[in-house]
Amino acid sequence: MNIFPASVQQLIKSFMYLPGIGPKSAERMALYLLGRYPAKGKTLADSLSTALEKVSYCLRCRHFSEKELCVICSDSTRDERLLCIVETASDLSAMEQSGGYNGYYFVLMGRLSPIDGVGPEELGLTVLLSQLASEKRVHEVILATNSTIEGEATAYFLVDQMKTLGLKVSRLANGVPLGSELEYMDKGTLTCALDQRHIFES
Amino acid sequence: MNIFPASVQQLIKSFMYLPGIGPKSAERMALYLLGRYPAKGKTLADSLSTALEKVSYCLRCRHFSEKELCVICSDSTRDERLLCIVETASDLSAMEQSGGYNGYYFVLMGRLSPIDGVGPEELGLTVLLSQLASEKRVHEVILATNSTIEGEATAYFLVDQMKTLGLKVSRLANGVPLGSELEYMDKGTLTCALDQRHIFES
Repeated sequence: MNIFPASVQQLIKSFMYLPGIGPKSAERMALYLLGRYPAKGKTLADSLSTALEKVSYCLRCRHFSEKELCVICSDSTRDERLLCIVETASDLSAMEQSGGYNGYYFVLMGRLSPIDGVGPEELGLTVLLSQLASEKRVHEVILATNSTIEGEATAYFLVDQMKTLGLKVSRLANGVPLGSELEYMDKGTLTCALDQRHIFES
Repeated sequence: MNIFPASVQQLIKSFMYLPGIGPKSAERMALYLLGRYPAKGKTLADSLSTALEKVSYCLRCRHFSEKELCVICSDSTRDERLLCIVETASDLSAMEQSGGYNGYYFVLMGRLSPIDGVGPEELGLTVLLSQLASEKRVHEVILATNSTIEGEATAYFLVDQMKTLGLKVSRLANGVPLGSELEYMDKGTLTCALDQRHIFES
């Protein structure tokens, strides 16, 4: 017997859709909003509905946007010679928070994965390549797909495509994350860090 | 400059209302639903609205319910001589999942906290005491408020109230949680475990 009424059970199940949320946390969230903060619950339900309704994708870079062009593509102060290709809007957000990049982006909304039916078309590459070929503003394309097998495969695929357009193509460095200890690094990462080591100019 | 459209920013802020969710997780949740699972997002928004609308409290025990009486109070197979008093519906859920209890409950929906304006009236004690006095079904009241300062204070207050009705009152044992090591126990817990030790009958 479930001790909660049907609508509460359904709510707990729905909270479990969220990434990283198991049954315990989902129950906690549901009871927290219902029991103590119904007004906050109402706000959450409303903002979720509103966002789902209003938010679409930027026609240029496929980042989330309520208008045709997203805030980044509408920002003319950025360096138009740089284009950074990321897998998701979360990755874009991480890059922006690093503060080290001031160019434009392109969001693949995924990675190459033939087994899931995700090919170049699904990643918007046709649009991107024709943009790059016609506008000729971008000098360097930075491949910032994840350092996973799928991300690397996607990057290698992109290198070939970009090279045919005669563009400079780069990839984020692999190496030891700041603040971490060599002792705990895996072999692959250390090998990459060695291979990609930089030399102090004398 | 925020890189997300206004409705996405609002959604991220709303997710931060949830217990244990900081800005990073909130962003992850928002982008996950918007970008990959809009249908699940819709379901979450709808179930939250529905639950907020439908769910009220059981007139008898103050547990969540869509009807006058909750599923537990409507279940006549339970032991009507036992009443367990808990602070919240989450605590009730934890007690039920333990499988060790088969009586009825009363949910205080809080704990005594004069500084926040929470007195006996807010905890529904007037209703509870008159129920207990008139029905005379309950033989033992188990106080299962938390082992925090507020929970203990609430339990001591309840002991006095229940004693005036001539009821047997008990409190959950304090001691070493199963699976944990003495080495890591705090002094208070160990003292309680010693005080409340049980003797093996020969």
